[in-house]
Amino acid sequence: MLSGKLGGMQDWSLRVTHLIDHAARECGTREIVTRWADGSIERTNWSGVGRDARKLAQAFAAMGLQPGDRVGTFAMNHHRHLTAWYGAIGFGGVIHTINIRLFDEQLIYIINHAEDRVLMYDAVFASIIERLKPHLTSVEHFICFDTDYLPLMAAHDGNFEWATGDERDPCMLCYTSGTTGNPKGVLYEHRSTMLHAMAEIAPSVFDLSPQAALLPIVPMFHAASWGLPFAGAAAGVKFVFSVTNEAPVLCDLFVNEGITHSAGVPTVWLAMFQHLDTLADSGRSVDLSKLRVVTIGGSACPRSMIERLMRMGIRVNHAWGMTETSPIGTMGAPSADWDDLSFDQQVAVTVRQGRVPFGVELRIVGDDGEVLPRDGKASGRLEIRGPWVVKRYFKMSEDAVIDGQWFDTGDVAILHPDGTMQITDRSKDVIKSGGEWISSVELENAAVGCPGVQEAAAIGIVHPKWDERPILLVVRKAGADVSAADVTAYLSDKVAKWWLPDEVLFVDSLPHTGTGKILKTALRAEYKDYRLASAA
Amino acid sequence: MLSGKLGGMQDWSLRVTHLIDHAARECGTREIVTRWADGSIERTNWSGVGRDARKLAQAFAAMGLQPGDRVGTFAMNHHRHLTAWYGAIGFGGVIHTINIRLFDEQLIYIINHAEDRVLMYDAVFASIIERLKPHLTSVEHFICFDTDYLPLMAAHDGNFEWATGDERDPCMLCYTSGTTGNPKGVLYEHRSTMLHAMAEIAPSVFDLSPQAALLPIVPMFHAASWGLPFAGAAAGVKFVFSVTNEAPVLCDLFVNEGITHSAGVPTVWLAMFQHLDTLADSGRSVDLSKLRVVTIGGSACPRSMIERLMRMGIRVNHAWGMTETSPIGTMGAPSADWDDLSFDQQVAVTVRQGRVPFGVELRIVGDDGEVLPRDGKASGRLEIRGPWVVKRYFKMSEDAVIDGQWFDTGDVAILHPDGTMQITDRSKDVIKSGGEWISSVELENAAVGCPGVQEAAAIGIVHPKWDERPILLVVRKAGADVSAADVTAYLSDKVAKWWLPDEVLFVDSLPHTGTGKILKTALRAEYKDYRLASAA
Repeated sequence: MLSGKLGGMQDWSLRVTHLIDHAARECGTREIVTRWADGSIERTNWSGVGRDARKLAQAFAAMGLQPGDRVGTFAMNHHRHLTAWYGAIGFGGVIHTINIRLFDEQLIYIINHAEDRVLMYDAVFASIIERLKPHLTSVEHFICFDTDYLPLMAAHDGNFEWATGDERDPCMLCYTSGTTGNPKGVLYEHRSTMLHAMAEIAPSVFDLSPQAALLPIVPMFHAASWGLPFAGAAAGVKFVFSVTNEAPVLCDLFVNEGITHSAGVPTVWLAMFQHLDTLADSGRSVDLSKLRVVTIGGSACPRSMIERLMRMGIRVNHAWGMTETSPIGTMGAPSADWDDLSFDQQVAVTVRQGRVPFGVELRIVGDDGEVLPRDGKASGRLEIRGPWVVKRYFKMSEDAVIDGQWFDTGDVAILHPDGTMQITDRSKDVIKSGGEWISSVELENAAVGCPGVQEAAAIGIVHPKWDERPILLVVRKAGADVSAADVTAYLSDKVAKWWLPDEVLFVDSLPHTGTGKILKTALRAEYKDYRLASAA
Repeated sequence: MLSGKLGGMQDWSLRVTHLIDHAARECGTREIVTRWADGSIERTNWSGVGRDARKLAQAFAAMGLQPGDRVGTFAMNHHRHLTAWYGAIGFGGVIHTINIRLFDEQLIYIINHAEDRVLMYDAVFASIIERLKPHLTSVEHFICFDTDYLPLMAAHDGNFEWATGDERDPCMLCYTSGTTGNPKGVLYEHRSTMLHAMAEIAPSVFDLSPQAALLPIVPMFHAASWGLPFAGAAAGVKFVFSVTNEAPVLCDLFVNEGITHSAGVPTVWLAMFQHLDTLADSGRSVDLSKLRVVTIGGSACPRSMIERLMRMGIRVNHAWGMTETSPIGTMGAPSADWDDLSFDQQVAVTVRQGRVPFGVELRIVGDDGEVLPRDGKASGRLEIRGPWVVKRYFKMSEDAVIDGQWFDTGDVAILHPDGTMQITDRSKDVIKSGGEWISSVELENAAVGCPGVQEAAAIGIVHPKWDERPILLVVRKAGADVSAADVTAYLSDKVAKWWLPDEVLFVDSLPHTGTGKILKTALRAEYKDYRLASAA
């Protein structure tokens, strides 16, 4: 056996500080732009972010923070927030991005559970922070990005050496917004973050290079803005941040800043389309010809959205992932045979959630844990493993994975022979009827296409013969008078006959989670004792 | 300080076997094509290569090979050679690719120094192997790719688990073709190879995705074919190999196999241009419209070549690196401001050797070891460090790097403020005149543009006043009668006046290394006692 002493390559630790050093050194003049709420535009660059991150790391060290300590942020997307990430990680700490959309009790639980010693926040959230303060047990320093940040910068000279250490040290903490129980923390490591960043810049993932001008609409508190603040540094992109996400604001930034890449949840694009249509109605057009790659994830991207973006000449990266996967699990980049496909075929492939980047592995398993074939037909619980997938949640006493490090995503999916993955449902939302699975998501997605339907939720109701049967809870659009029969008729040629809901019930509203997803647990609890007419 | 026990991400070793597993699993049907010498085309795919690599690993294990043992290959580019890489690494061994163009004594030295236990070779080299055999002290198994390979495949079922181990274990051994002393071995590690592969697929490096059809012209025995057999697996490209590199053969493959990416030394493209011109003269044209990215390295790419390729709509990746750097040190991908540049400006930027990929760091130092500015003017010895840069040569007792892990490349370069690097010379070839440096490479490159000049070499001759002054040794083109005065006149508006050679001498031929570079050491030895007229 050869020993390392017989020769070898250099020692180089997969520490996140390499990212900011690289960007500041090699792409120092590439701009980092923030559009503030008042419409003003502030510009710095990677060299500036690198310099300020060192000052901030120095400030944290001066406060007495120790390696491993958590720095919480309660903020929107801007370059000061970006600087805070690299500053907190740079002194050896752990950046903890807090989802501002959670309820007070969840926020209090998360901040105390994380034991944040510092809390950095935007002035716009000052009243929330004041409300939470009496309940926070660990926070010693409150730093307002608007008022305390520049004085901190002025008070330090940046003469600070990044902390060194093991590449398996933690660098970031993100909590899931679970629909049941307390939120769980996922503790990203330097190594996992670095490998994830290197994987993300690949052409078949985010396709990032120094030529990219990237506007991440996905918040920095949502699964680390999908890792883009790290990948963007590795690639040396121009970053454009906006603290607000109104479509007209984003649209202006797209045009004025020459945005080539963007990333966000589907609803952002619905609003953008409305804005573009409104402009078009008044005879104005917008030049989005520089926009080349749009990554959509967080929830399934509707086919019509994919089609419209693709007709605009934009590549749609349909992504899937979760906080537990850093978050990139799959990405729907063009396939090997892309150029041989018709437009409709390209759309059909893009409706699926894409393929794994190098590093990640998927499998689907059945009810008895048996591994199912990648045949494009079998549907099973989706399991994932890889270098940027969670092994154990923060402060948990047991691993979150089973043998072979497989992590159960809670999603139900199909794996196709070409390697593409297709989410069909959340495993706890799937409706089991007669030994087969009905996808609640597919039922809902089909139903919202029905004229007059604003929103729909499908849940399973106990049935003596079929185990479960679906019902559909529908919120009507304002002024619409769509009937249950209308909805059923509309669905009849869109889903299998035995998938058709036994009943369609109209409700005034549906409950949602802090991140805007329908809260199925609450619905299931509410309809626990509901008796189906068909069960009589 | 947080301990890993408080939570964390999955264990995942940076072992090269992940590459072939990924390609076989996710891109299994993507083709791997070989064009043999007789013109026949053989097709397999990543699934086939993965299966056969396991069989080969099984065969090596059955031969009694142990982890760390070296498997030598003496072969051109083909899929069996690719399989041998993954097979040798898969049983825990070290693949050692031998440069077939070296002289017998170097080959014997290298094979014995590497202690190869197996030597795999192409039948076309059988007579060389027979000639070497009596001198080889370690080789126990000779395996001919043409005659012994398929029987080996038939004899094993591939039911074999990849070897596991530390990610700092060695996986590959490549010897430099040094112009002085014995060749030195660079021992690549699993980790360095994996990080290099992940970096290589980035848009601003090789830009590899499943859509790529890649024909690496650079031999697999030349700095690991620039790492493409690894990066290609990470990206899941279609590979096309050719065992011969005649321009008509390559041209046919480009067209017939829809090649999008290629990589090779500049001379390959000179031959290709001649072929295209010959076809054009006879009224035939070739459709190379699918060819999108051409990477050129090994020696500096002439401006005229860059210009012609760019006029064909091809992106020219002007690369620099060496065996000691795995080999990618820099890559001349489009800059951030690319679209704002004129064509001439784009060419001018591409003439430089590009920028570092994420991971690598460069600096230039002066004669006294002082770090010089990245100002686009200062020229100094180029030093490099990073995860895929050599630390210690194989079997050496001392590290090859100085403090801070800086490795002296032996090149002289300028670093520009935009991060691009420009090689000006080899440090031992640079001519020192009056305390300033004259680039022998620039003199030579300018001189070969002079009508009638086939090849030129500039070396420094001792001078009492100036320390050294350049002379130019010129080989005339067949039938040309270019004079010394003609050459000097031609150079006079292309280089600084004090760079003009004191004398131009005509010779019948110039000595070359095994890899085709001019052997400056031999020239310097030959002209050691040459007396300049100007020194009288």
